[in-house]
Amino acid sequence: MSLVLDASAQDLLFREARTANTFTDEPVTDEQIQAIYDLVKYAPTAFNQQPLRIVLVRSAEGRERLVKHMAEGNQPKTSAAPLVAILAADNEFHEELPTQFPHFPQAKDLFFSERSVREQAATLNGSLQAGYFILGIRAAGLAAGPMTGFDAAGIDKEFFPEGDHSVLAVVNIGKPGTDSWFPTRSPRLAYDEVVTTV
Amino acid sequence: MSLVLDASAQDLLFREARTANTFTDEPVTDEQIQAIYDLVKYAPTAFNQQPLRIVLVRSAEGRERLVKHMAEGNQPKTSAAPLVAILAADNEFHEELPTQFPHFPQAKDLFFSERSVREQAATLNGSLQAGYFILGIRAAGLAAGPMTGFDAAGIDKEFFPEGDHSVLAVVNIGKPGTDSWFPTRSPRLAYDEVVTTV
Repeated sequence: MSLVLDASAQDLLFREARTANTFTDEPVTDEQIQAIYDLVKYAPTAFNQQPLRIVLVRSAEGRERLVKHMAEGNQPKTSAAPLVAILAADNEFHEELPTQFPHFPQAKDLFFSERSVREQAATLNGSLQAGYFILGIRAAGLAAGPMTGFDAAGIDKEFFPEGDHSVLAVVNIGKPGTDSWFPTRSPRLAYDEVVTTV
Repeated sequence: MSLVLDASAQDLLFREARTANTFTDEPVTDEQIQAIYDLVKYAPTAFNQQPLRIVLVRSAEGRERLVKHMAEGNQPKTSAAPLVAILAADNEFHEELPTQFPHFPQAKDLFFSERSVREQAATLNGSLQAGYFILGIRAAGLAAGPMTGFDAAGIDKEFFPEGDHSVLAVVNIGKPGTDSWFPTRSPRLAYDEVVTTV
């Protein structure tokens, strides 16, 4: 009763959606990814930082360059998914702050002149944005299979040779296929294990 | 046309929701936070890792202990919001993996025996969960005001003296008050600035 979001949206985004391990052959279009981005781009980050960068792996050559950096257990599904997206944080995101956060254009130089500070902010806010993007995939009626099992340094060097990006996750995207998920959902921590009050 | 999520849910979570800077006096109940948690807990993380911990700051004494670690510009709104939540990552989350990811109980020791590896995973997955929680606040018809402007080491020491948690964000929660947000929304990067294809 405490939620305003309608039950079908709760199911689509959270309750019935599952992480997909197999997919049908149905392609995922650029129009779908654009609709997803144009929805989730509005979700909040600190100082309106937008470090998230998305590389859609569409060519056979691109797929080959990616799969070799994935952990062995992730290689078959990364090879087979209709679309694979590399989600990375741009550690030079601060260059955009004067236009993206016009209320406080000094933020770029005041807070983010040090690379280590930027990297920390890019990881945090890029991960927030990655979470929003995963829910956006579900909002498009698609299933997401996010993975972190890969050689991160290998992917960074392969896809971001300038050295200014850090991969956060690789996400398989498509319509769920046969036996796409474990039959029983993994447990979740209870409210009292996660939330305390002071 | 590419989205399945209905328009009112898109508005509630993304398009019309804004980061709130002022709030009404209406309290935020434990029931609301429990409903939010029981929705967003289902969103995915790597290996079903659940590092997110939430501290609800309800007492006057707790508020005082928190506000002194906030950046000066964030102190008035952190003092005034009906409810403030500290979102932190538990860097010892791996202890729960054998029960939370029963498909692969060895993950705890195979992948997460090193603290630095755990911290990296806790930051990434805790931030994903923080993003889900922020959207959950909106799903409850409330506004969120997430902040990262604070003395992180100070908050960690104050609220997590055991040394096993890292604060990710502090979030003001409530019904939006008068002049709660900037009149014009900050811009967002265009699709072509964020998404590339290989």
